[in-house]
Amino acid sequence: MNSTAPSLSPADPAALVTGLAEAARLAQRQLAAMPSEARAAALHRAADALRGATANVLAANARDLAAGKANGLSAAMLDRLALDEARLSGIADAVAAVADLPDPVGEVIDSREQPNGLKLQRIRVPIGVIGIIYESRPNVTADAAALCVRAGNAALLRGGSEAVHSNRAIHAALTEGLVAGGVPAEAVQLVPSQDRACVGAMLTASGLIDMIVPRGGKSLVARVQADARVPVLAHLDGINHTYVHAAAGPAMAEAIVINAKLRRTGICGSMETLLIDSAFPQAASLVSALIDAGCEVRGDGRTQALDRRVVPAGADDWDTEYLDAIASVAIVDGLDEALAHITRHSSAHTDAIVTDDHAAAERFLSEVDSAIVMHNASSQFADGGEFGLGAEIGIATGRLHARGPVALEGLTTYKWQVRGGGQTRP
Amino acid sequence: MNSTAPSLSPADPAALVTGLAEAARLAQRQLAAMPSEARAAALHRAADALRGATANVLAANARDLAAGKANGLSAAMLDRLALDEARLSGIADAVAAVADLPDPVGEVIDSREQPNGLKLQRIRVPIGVIGIIYESRPNVTADAAALCVRAGNAALLRGGSEAVHSNRAIHAALTEGLVAGGVPAEAVQLVPSQDRACVGAMLTASGLIDMIVPRGGKSLVARVQADARVPVLAHLDGINHTYVHAAAGPAMAEAIVINAKLRRTGICGSMETLLIDSAFPQAASLVSALIDAGCEVRGDGRTQALDRRVVPAGADDWDTEYLDAIASVAIVDGLDEALAHITRHSSAHTDAIVTDDHAAAERFLSEVDSAIVMHNASSQFADGGEFGLGAEIGIATGRLHARGPVALEGLTTYKWQVRGGGQTRP
Repeated sequence: MNSTAPSLSPADPAALVTGLAEAARLAQRQLAAMPSEARAAALHRAADALRGATANVLAANARDLAAGKANGLSAAMLDRLALDEARLSGIADAVAAVADLPDPVGEVIDSREQPNGLKLQRIRVPIGVIGIIYESRPNVTADAAALCVRAGNAALLRGGSEAVHSNRAIHAALTEGLVAGGVPAEAVQLVPSQDRACVGAMLTASGLIDMIVPRGGKSLVARVQADARVPVLAHLDGINHTYVHAAAGPAMAEAIVINAKLRRTGICGSMETLLIDSAFPQAASLVSALIDAGCEVRGDGRTQALDRRVVPAGADDWDTEYLDAIASVAIVDGLDEALAHITRHSSAHTDAIVTDDHAAAERFLSEVDSAIVMHNASSQFADGGEFGLGAEIGIATGRLHARGPVALEGLTTYKWQVRGGGQTRP
Repeated sequence: MNSTAPSLSPADPAALVTGLAEAARLAQRQLAAMPSEARAAALHRAADALRGATANVLAANARDLAAGKANGLSAAMLDRLALDEARLSGIADAVAAVADLPDPVGEVIDSREQPNGLKLQRIRVPIGVIGIIYESRPNVTADAAALCVRAGNAALLRGGSEAVHSNRAIHAALTEGLVAGGVPAEAVQLVPSQDRACVGAMLTASGLIDMIVPRGGKSLVARVQADARVPVLAHLDGINHTYVHAAAGPAMAEAIVINAKLRRTGICGSMETLLIDSAFPQAASLVSALIDAGCEVRGDGRTQALDRRVVPAGADDWDTEYLDAIASVAIVDGLDEALAHITRHSSAHTDAIVTDDHAAAERFLSEVDSAIVMHNASSQFADGGEFGLGAEIGIATGRLHARGPVALEGLTTYKWQVRGGGQTRP
């Protein structure tokens, strides 16, 4: 990461991160002790402060964009980095929307009384200090901070060098609003150094940082997963399958497949592999429609026989996340073969079946072991907002703690409260 | 670990563990597809088979005990290792009891319908392949296997060399019963080599083993936590505090403190530090009663002034898990000072307050950030059975996934099932 930004360069990044995390821990305790309405009100003030800082933030963003162009960033990266009034207004709206989400903290998960009179409750509590490591999208600064604060967590943010001025301006505005609302400034901190060793220090800060959420491309996530000693909430790949069963309605199948692949090709919920049952009568027209819609199709032998424009798939294609207008397509003989293919190649993100056969659909929903399994819907719905969660901190494909789109509940844990009347254990 | 046991010595422990884990993964899929009642019935058969193998298991245990004596194992280790008819019957009963526990798999955690008609459900599913690494207690072989199988998980068991013959005999009996009940043999596997490199291979088997549960002493847990790349469910320490508030009833305080410290000193839920409020009028008699009951008290200056038998506490005492008839005792000035002491020194396992003041109790239950917080009860209740969970795979002090006593629910995760009618995302 090149940067023209001035950076603090502490002699010891580990000491810097330790100091930030210890301050975050103290602030988190104060934040957690605030009433839920006070945290919400402070987030509304942060949204207002962000709106009030529009000129500042856009000026900072212009510096980042100029540096990015000078450093030869790609057009796609510059687009991810760029803010304008509308985008910034959307970011502020998102902070306000998170403020209005129901607070999971304090929710009683279960409640029981033992024969000896002990009353037990499990209640949701904040996780603690969340580290967010992200790349060039400055909106993550506000989104992640808002979600963390809503659920009573401190956020330690480490954004990319490309967005350093934008992130600092957004963070300054958020902090102004949060502090005015009674939230300690250290509840949301931006790591002030762009030294990459700070990332390593965050990843190994067991006991200081409770969870790391990486937001960015595959190389960032892979590094975080490889090096982290702190638990990580993430997905590496979205190698998502849509299986068109023999009993799929052809119009629905075509609409779902084209939407799943092409609505937006760069998101993690997009379809990468299409499995078509050999007993589905309209396989040829489905493949042709996908190609006509602008998708390159890399097919197995039987798919190649359906349309001359199909390119032969290589062995790697079944394990490739294209994030582009490309799909791998295989013909399978029945549900069992589809399930076996998915078991072998899925990244456990989102897999879907299209069929009018209820039993086949239920077997697919039961047996496919992915974070999200769908029947007769586009995998592009794999999103916290679309799932009714109001937002998301990310999508997780690990098996523990939280899976699929993760929003406020995934930013909490629980504790056991035991209320007695003097019981001793016999 | 010394052993006279014959061990397979594969050239490559990593290859051995990989092969076992891959077989476990396949078996787990079959296990998860079995109806809940079939898994329960198979566990009952396993319990019966264990009872039927009493002579075999006790003969194997006698070999382990003889080897342990020859190798100079301590009396405490020999006691943990020793089985007799009554203990083995208890182990079989525990397997049967787990079989009868309600199955969490398939439980719908939440259910919602979006305005576009998408129906979303989160349902509990097994975690997958659980690795259990344990020491000399052969009962863990049966307990852990039963809990894993009840919740649809495969278990990969790695017991200590001291118990190798006992573990093999118990595992053989369990397998006989499980297989007769339709469970694949590879759903519960005992690592056949005592090579310590197998433990290292398990700890780093990301993607093959989904979670590791260490069961044993602090050095085992510390090694597992330090080396594991796979998520670990564990607690390292139980540095548990009981705070006797100014408004505590003196008789209740004495009964709870003596029970919390001395009922069993070697369990993780035992009290290690007693905090007495300086405004609690009966501090002297409380300390004297604890000493009279056979506990060594290591106190701060003010505690030393209460009873001549109090030994001065060193700085390390506040961070020491004695697991013995020893307690560190400090006098604190009010709830805030008690909370500050606990924040600094607690291992986040189980902390308790004794008081008749409702507001003080609720503040303690709210602000102490431990897995278990108690009011007017002995910390020795920190146990899955006492919490009504029927059993426990362990007690967790980490912050993610599960905290406190973990039983069947903690051995599950969830997936999102989405049922549509052809929806595509606009």
